[in-house]
Formats: sequence, structure tokens, C-alpha cells
Amino acid sequence: MPAPPPDIAALLAARDTPRVWSLLVSLFGDVAQSPDARLSGAALGRMTEPFGVKPEALRVSLHRLRKDGWIESTREGRRGFYRLTETGHRESRRASPRIYSGTALAEEAFVLLWDPSATPPDALTSAAVTLSATSALSPRPAEDAGVLSLLLAPSEPVPAWIRAKVCPKALVEQSRALLTLLEAVAAWRAATAEHQNASASAVARLLVLHEWRRLVLRQPTLPDFVFPKGWQGPACRARARALLASLPRLTPKQIEALGSLC
Amino acid sequence: MPAPPPDIAALLAARDTPRVWSLLVSLFGDVAQSPDARLSGAALGRMTEPFGVKPEALRVSLHRLRKDGWIESTREGRRGFYRLTETGHRESRRASPRIYSGTALAEEAFVLLWDPSATPPDALTSAAVTLSATSALSPRPAEDAGVLSLLLAPSEPVPAWIRAKVCPKALVEQSRALLTLLEAVAAWRAATAEHQNASASAVARLLVLHEWRRLVLRQPTLPDFVFPKGWQGPACRARARALLASLPRLTPKQIEALGSLC
Repeated sequence: MPAPPPDIAALLAARDTPRVWSLLVSLFGDVAQSPDARLSGAALGRMTEPFGVKPEALRVSLHRLRKDGWIESTREGRRGFYRLTETGHRESRRASPRIYSGTALAEEAFVLLWDPSATPPDALTSAAVTLSATSALSPRPAEDAGVLSLLLAPSEPVPAWIRAKVCPKALVEQSRALLTLLEAVAAWRAATAEHQNASASAVARLLVLHEWRRLVLRQPTLPDFVFPKGWQGPACRARARALLASLPRLTPKQIEALGSLC
Repeated sequence: MPAPPPDIAALLAARDTPRVWSLLVSLFGDVAQSPDARLSGAALGRMTEPFGVKPEALRVSLHRLRKDGWIESTREGRRGFYRLTETGHRESRRASPRIYSGTALAEEAFVLLWDPSATPPDALTSAAVTLSATSALSPRPAEDAGVLSLLLAPSEPVPAWIRAKVCPKALVEQSRALLTLLEAVAAWRAATAEHQNASASAVARLLVLHEWRRLVLRQPTLPDFVFPKGWQGPACRARARALLASLPRLTPKQIEALGSLC
């Protein structure tokens, strides 16, 4: 008999507590993107407590996010509410396609090569991965006619040193660990589909979303075929997408109504 | 009425005297590639005199070529004879395809990119043009799997700085000057085709061959589409080939029988 799939509380207990401000950014970005959406401090506490977040750490992070202009707070009697600022909304919207897209971040890779005696081109935005002092790998050809832009065909053998520049070993490891986690969540989901409670589903969704977001925002915007062997990004993307589709996104009102998971 | 085409003696008189040893290498490579071919000092004098070569300069150059192991000499009574050594034969044979071919030196160009933290690959022979500390342009892909080799399609826009690395301005200038010279020789050939003397033809052939050889041995082995605008290599190749076909290659015996041009 196979071991029973772990429940979400046990999965979370076995993990390190995430950075609280980052977990909150994941949560707000998922459920509070409409302009008037807000979450109470109490609801935030219930959603983050299963991750190991202590009330004091939550307060500190909320303070930090407010100071950074990401969220703003209001009070109603003794209850505090938090919502995204305009900046927070904009940044969340900007990250959304990357996080929720079911397709690869890029389909094409271009090798850019510029004049060693010239300054690197402005066009080399954060999307490009530096290969050397005079070359980079980018999802787009350079606009500057002084830069040679060569399409890297998917059939081209990509040397290991280029793959390593695209994605360092630590990120490959993170993708492997994430795949293991997502498979555990999927097993739990499959085993408990009929009698899941809403709190567990909401926390599971936040776990999947947050961990996937941490990977996808770190990985360069380049097609999967330039990544190192062992990179589990595409498998993680497929798993995360399937889980996010099966674990419904709650409205702020529904979040408020949830009981405690623990 | 158009100006009459200059004769070969006048064309040569208007030019600087070439490096004598290099002119001799051109001549031996053209007429003395068979193992037992030899040329007398007197015949070498008659062939090089129209280029402005003085007897003393000829002696010095023959001495140098002998010292370098390129030619060897024998005497028959008071006459000295010169022929290619085994080394001279080998080097002449090696340069021949490049000089006499009617087609471009290369059809394809590959951008090679290697790991900045690794040593440059051995495979980067003299055929490749260095683009930066970690990249080169080569007529062949690298054999080393650690080097990214990307085909540069002829349709690809090639930045000016790459064209300049492939062929410096001085070489572009040389190709322009050569084209002007070859056109003058072709005009002379067309105007005098029916009453040319053998000496003038032989000297004209040596002039065409030597000047074309100087260009083609300097240019990198890369397809014409990566050269700078203004590069006249392809036009020179076509002209030189047509002239070499119409100005017959003489045997050493025929060279000996020639009279003086001047």
C-alpha cells in the first residue's frame, strides 16, 4: 500500500518559513488585484500562519510593505484592512502574465554580439543573459543595427557553459525541489478531492502560487531549450498551471470567511 | 575618341617595384610547379626587369629564397638555373587553389562563441577572424562542442564593425586599386589581342597573377557577403580569372625563349 499523501499542514510544517513580505506579495497579487479589494489583518494571519509566520513577523512585513508603497492600510473600529496601492497594483499586473501563463516565457533566443570597442547597447535590458563582455543571449534581436543578432535555432547544440550562464545550478536545484513539492500537492489534491475544506485549498493554492512565482520570477526570459539539463521549469509550469486551475482563486470576501487551517 | 589603352611596359612603369622575392614566388608558383622545371637567371632577369627589378636586387632575392629553402640553384657552365625545393613545391601547391579558383574562398560563415573563463579553442586556426576575446568568424563550425557555432545566413544584416574586422580599410583600398589595374590590363588585352608579342603576354600574366595573389593571400577565408561595402574581391577574382585564361601560362622552356620586353 502506498504511503498516504501528506496533508497541506504537514507539507508546510516540513518546509522553511518563506520570506513573509514575499508571501504577502504573492497573496495580494492573487486575490486582491481588483481596485477595491482589501484583506483584513486577521485574514492575512489565518492565511500565513500555516507557513509558520508568527503575528509579530506579519506585522513587521505589513509595515515594510506599507513603507515601500506597495500596500496601504485602513481601520474599521478595531479591525485593520490592507489593500494594494497603485504601485502595488501596477507591479502585480506586470508580473501576472509571467506567473499565470501556460506557455514558455520565450520561444526564441538570439545571440547578440557587439563591438568590443563600443559601449554595450542600451537595448540589453534585464531580459538578456550576459555571456561575455561583448555578447548576450536575448529573447529578442537587438534594435541597434551595430549589434549582430543571430537566431539560436532549437536544433542547435547549446554548449554547457551557455546553459550554466542562463540558469545557475542553484536555480536548477530549486526547480527540482519545486517539482517534488508540486507533485506532492497534486497527490494530496487527487486523494482528497471530494472532502477538501476551503481553508486547506486556499492555503495549498497560495503555496503553489508562491513557490512557482519564486521560480518563474528568477528565471531568465528565454526559451526552455537553452536551459541546463535537469532544469524542471517546463514540468513545474505545467504542474503549477494544472493545480492553480483546480484550486479555485477565492475572492477577498471568501478569504475573510475562511476558518483557520491549523 | 577614347584614350588608347596603355601598353604593359607603361602600366608597369607607373607602378612601384614589387617586393622581388614575392614576385619570384609568384613566377615560380605559376610556371615551375612540375618537379623538374627550372628557370635560368637570365630568364628571371628578363621577366622581372619590366617590373623595375635591378640585377643586384634579383641576386639578393634569389639568395634569400635559397637561404629560406624555397629554391635551389645549379650551374651549367656560366649559366645559373633555379628551381623550387620540395618545400617550395609544397607551399606553391598549397596556395594554388586559393589563387586559381574561380569561386569564392568560402560559402559559409559561422560565428563562434566560447566560454570567457576557458582558453580559446585550438580549432581557431588562421582561417578564423577574431571578433572579440571570446568570439570569432570562421568558414567552418568549431569541432569543440564547448564552442557555440552559429551559421551566419547571407540574408543576415552584418554590422559594419564586423565587416571592418573581416577586412581592414587598407585591404578594401587594395582591392579597388587592383580592379582598376585589372581593367587596364583587360583593355590593353582587348585592344592588342591580334598583335601581342609573347613577352608582353608573359609579363602581363605575371603582373595579373602577382597582384591578384597579393590580395587573395591577404584576405580571410570567408564568404564575400561578410566583407565591407566597397570590397572589390569578387570583381577582381572574375577579372583575374578571365585574364589568366586568356594570357597563356608558358612552360619554362617557352620562358627561356622569350625576348626582352623593354
